[in-house]
Amino acid sequence: MSPKITTELLKQLRQVMKNPRYVQEPVQAYIVPSGDAHQSEYIAPCDCRRAFISGFDGSAGTAIVTEQHAAMWTDGRYFLQAAHQMDSNWTLMKMGLKDTPTQEDWLVSVLPEGSKVGVDPFIIPADQWKRMSKVLRSAGHDLVPVKENLIDTIWTDCPQRPCKPLITLDLSYTGVSWRDKIIALRSKMAERKVMWFVVTALDEVAWLFNLRGSDVEYNPVFFAYAVIGMNTIRLFIDGNRMLDPAVREHLQLDSTLEPEFKIQVLPYGSILSELQAVGAGLSPKDKVWLSDKASYALTEAIPKAYRYLTPYTPICIAKAVKNAAETEGMRRAHIKDAVALCELFNWLEKEVPKGTVTEIVAADKAEEFRSQQKDFVELSFATISSTGPNGAIIHYKPVPETNRTLSVNEIYLLDSGAQYKDGTTDVTRTMHFGTPSAYEKECFTYVLKGHIAVSAAIFPNGTKGHLLDSFARSALWDCGLDYLHGTGHGVGSFLNVHEGPCGISYKTFADEPLEAGMIVSDEPGYYEDGSFGIRIENVVLVIPAETKYNFKNRGSLTFEPLTLVPIQTKMIDVNLLTEKELHWVNEYHRRCREVVGAELERQGRHEALRWLLRETEPLARVQ
Amino acid sequence: MSPKITTELLKQLRQVMKNPRYVQEPVQAYIVPSGDAHQSEYIAPCDCRRAFISGFDGSAGTAIVTEQHAAMWTDGRYFLQAAHQMDSNWTLMKMGLKDTPTQEDWLVSVLPEGSKVGVDPFIIPADQWKRMSKVLRSAGHDLVPVKENLIDTIWTDCPQRPCKPLITLDLSYTGVSWRDKIIALRSKMAERKVMWFVVTALDEVAWLFNLRGSDVEYNPVFFAYAVIGMNTIRLFIDGNRMLDPAVREHLQLDSTLEPEFKIQVLPYGSILSELQAVGAGLSPKDKVWLSDKASYALTEAIPKAYRYLTPYTPICIAKAVKNAAETEGMRRAHIKDAVALCELFNWLEKEVPKGTVTEIVAADKAEEFRSQQKDFVELSFATISSTGPNGAIIHYKPVPETNRTLSVNEIYLLDSGAQYKDGTTDVTRTMHFGTPSAYEKECFTYVLKGHIAVSAAIFPNGTKGHLLDSFARSALWDCGLDYLHGTGHGVGSFLNVHEGPCGISYKTFADEPLEAGMIVSDEPGYYEDGSFGIRIENVVLVIPAETKYNFKNRGSLTFEPLTLVPIQTKMIDVNLLTEKELHWVNEYHRRCREVVGAELERQGRHEALRWLLRETEPLARVQ
Repeated sequence: MSPKITTELLKQLRQVMKNPRYVQEPVQAYIVPSGDAHQSEYIAPCDCRRAFISGFDGSAGTAIVTEQHAAMWTDGRYFLQAAHQMDSNWTLMKMGLKDTPTQEDWLVSVLPEGSKVGVDPFIIPADQWKRMSKVLRSAGHDLVPVKENLIDTIWTDCPQRPCKPLITLDLSYTGVSWRDKIIALRSKMAERKVMWFVVTALDEVAWLFNLRGSDVEYNPVFFAYAVIGMNTIRLFIDGNRMLDPAVREHLQLDSTLEPEFKIQVLPYGSILSELQAVGAGLSPKDKVWLSDKASYALTEAIPKAYRYLTPYTPICIAKAVKNAAETEGMRRAHIKDAVALCELFNWLEKEVPKGTVTEIVAADKAEEFRSQQKDFVELSFATISSTGPNGAIIHYKPVPETNRTLSVNEIYLLDSGAQYKDGTTDVTRTMHFGTPSAYEKECFTYVLKGHIAVSAAIFPNGTKGHLLDSFARSALWDCGLDYLHGTGHGVGSFLNVHEGPCGISYKTFADEPLEAGMIVSDEPGYYEDGSFGIRIENVVLVIPAETKYNFKNRGSLTFEPLTLVPIQTKMIDVNLLTEKELHWVNEYHRRCREVVGAELERQGRHEALRWLLRETEPLARVQ
Repeated sequence: MSPKITTELLKQLRQVMKNPRYVQEPVQAYIVPSGDAHQSEYIAPCDCRRAFISGFDGSAGTAIVTEQHAAMWTDGRYFLQAAHQMDSNWTLMKMGLKDTPTQEDWLVSVLPEGSKVGVDPFIIPADQWKRMSKVLRSAGHDLVPVKENLIDTIWTDCPQRPCKPLITLDLSYTGVSWRDKIIALRSKMAERKVMWFVVTALDEVAWLFNLRGSDVEYNPVFFAYAVIGMNTIRLFIDGNRMLDPAVREHLQLDSTLEPEFKIQVLPYGSILSELQAVGAGLSPKDKVWLSDKASYALTEAIPKAYRYLTPYTPICIAKAVKNAAETEGMRRAHIKDAVALCELFNWLEKEVPKGTVTEIVAADKAEEFRSQQKDFVELSFATISSTGPNGAIIHYKPVPETNRTLSVNEIYLLDSGAQYKDGTTDVTRTMHFGTPSAYEKECFTYVLKGHIAVSAAIFPNGTKGHLLDSFARSALWDCGLDYLHGTGHGVGSFLNVHEGPCGISYKTFADEPLEAGMIVSDEPGYYEDGSFGIRIENVVLVIPAETKYNFKNRGSLTFEPLTLVPIQTKMIDVNLLTEKELHWVNEYHRRCREVVGAELERQGRHEALRWLLRETEPLARVQ
């Protein structure tokens, strides 16, 4: 990787920072955040402005350019990558290290008195604006919204905003019609005495209308906003997508409907003016509900006294609890995904000893097997296919420069998943195609113990996921080992592979309580820098549990694994497992055999079936 | 308990709420919080204003009186008590229930437009003022500071503010001189570029100057403030306490000292004017450090731009990490405390079958045995002595109306502790003096498993206590049982029995990471309403742990029990314990026997020693 040369670009940016065509007054600093106008985790190429100006294209990072400086804040996952991709114009600000200043503090330390700091008000979330602007103001500076994005003014070959066709999902996939979702949403709005709800997150728009798209890689979403009133529905979306008869029919655009279910389709770009009109027409006591992560621009469209901001929207919470149709879809998707992985691992076992399989080849092969499955749409994230030391890089993605060949001497870690029309998958397996060392087995077994501790945990209704995080670490901690990431994230149903509001992590506290029907990942790991990485990840469904005393009728919960892919028994040191853990492994493999075995049989994949049968032989303690 | 008749008092209060002698403009509502001017958990009788106006004297509650209404907010522990103690003038607001409005929302719903809501600015913490005033302002009302406390104006027989003599602690108790504590504090101030630090919490003043008092029951503190500058020390304190030669000598008031260590003693009541003078004399860039829980009055004395507010002060954090002298003192205190409890339990075993021992008698006897120990000062909190159904009331304190007689048919729970000059104790034991039922043993054993899971936990340096909370619940959860309180709190060293900034609870997230030398309680429980309560509590010291891999030199921590009182083996169902847990119990009892046995021997308490030896017999699994 050679760094991007940014001298000329920075010069241009500094010019437009003073150009009255774009700024009312010159700005002495300009902030380029990572996100798009919907605060998406995955963004479209046209929104990769921070990567364009700096060269650094990791998933998280904020650039700030002043007249003298250019600085990039990113976290530990990307220190190395950012250092490689950026030229000497840039200073790397290593977040999480003690001496690294916050963006605000740094700005205060470098800016001349009374400076203006510009940012695109559509990109910066309202809560972040508030925090930054407060610090800057108290130091005598001003955070100012710059309407036209300054990067876009110098990005001459900026790709177009994608505008791909939509997919409609019928009741067999979604379980609930968009009409019933609107009714449920309005009842939540009525509960909170709110007249309007503004849908800003792309996955929330997609979920609400039972539509999917492909504007953003890996996430089956499309660029749109929606504004739901008690009697009106406005959908802001571009292109010819509303000309598609299937979409028109799905949204009942041409039917005679009660007026409160009539969808008014408006241009994507008109959201701000329409919202300003809503804001101007409010009566006292009217409230408008927005996520506190919505952009500053949209939040400001509603006068402060009328705003009702929450960290999680009612759609986010409703979307997290999967109904029977979604749960069944997720089960089907995970069985198909397991078939593809049985094929892959069987293939790898044969091919790896030949020395011809690289990380990229393996990743491509995984995609090939997945794409053979019914209703396959695309991958759900960039495949992490990593062997040996690359496995210790938690967010590794193989590229030609780092591509390593799989061998019988190194641990192989594959973290991958797909979007099927009936569900989203995300699974990690760690394999050895030769003979693992005792230390590798020891570490793997601790990770497995942690995985089981979460998966088999029983807890009262209303427990928040972050309270389960330590269960995943206990076995590692006992030996002085740990991993520096959370244990699990929410998973969408043919939607984003990472979604709120629940998860299992020591880092969050504001997660919503787990309830039956929620779906999260369970993925503890262990990473030895320069040597290997281990992670065992299943997607699990929250289900009611049977307990002796049932929490005085408060109810009990536990998890059911949706992922049904064998966990390599060769890597397990059976003597480190308790009886209960051993039973869990054997029972899990029995289910893999039964459920995935039947599907392999049905699909006539006999060689992969033989592999599955071999890999799911019950384990016994060595006497 | 008959309720306090408050009709006349409320009438008087409503009059002063309009009396221009006390308020600039009439206030339509007046808030009476629980706390004192130092946000203490335990308060002096003269500060029990909420109890005076309402009759409700639980430890937590906020009263609000308007022209029409009188309402009391309290939490689940006190619903019954508050309902009993208050007359029909009062509406009980049950916090934690879904339909209970917040104080702000309730005010907004009952007040006429443009109302003024008064509060004593010395009693309300700044962070709470901010939250309330924001909501009130957005609804068109105003929160206003009322200088003179309106309750005090009608409380004709209000007791005097206590002003008891001080105790000086020498280096053998504190390990660090007050002078060195000031030096360390100033270095923390320099790190944060802060010129002034305002000490508002009573235990922080006591700790900083190595002084103790007895102005407040159970907490060895005294009414005082301090303001530490880089070159000045101001102590705000009343009475003749500074005439005591021992105190003068301890504070070196009459010595020739470098000016930066010269303590200037000022009247307690002059803190506000002195702080205002500090505020007025600040240069740009000067900062004044305050706790964000400091009173609104003191916080406002410093212009906003100069304030540096943190949830935990540097004193709070330094105080939590006990040095060698303090740790040794805590060990000694716990051995003496164990001697007293061995005497008590031996005595109870003989006396309970006679049917003459009530909860109050048992509590008094515990105090009697404790008071025989060297350096005993007072109890560290009101003894929870509860048998049968009273044990299920988590914050129970026996009073004549509820006083129950201990019997061989009921479980007895004793949660008690003392202040010794060398340390603070807090221990809970649950005993049966007859034959416990299988269900009682089962529940007790789950609680014990949880206690051990925390006590024996190994975790990396830098782990926050709240991440250990679920370990204490896991065994209970597996059977559908739980308890609705946190698992542990910080414990002071001859200081408050509850102190920040660390603890073990699912409720907090802002706790500081655990480090070696911190001391917390480990106290899971189980409560069966109307039947019994079980709790097993030790005070434990955070110590370095030995682990196989030591977290890549990040270091490992675990706990060492300071409490050394036998856990009743009769209550344990040995077959529910793992080998590791059984070993923990036997090893714990071996230490009790060795350490406390030697002290009982030394004190010539032979009968209690025989009791200890019997109670610490190693357990074996029944084959």
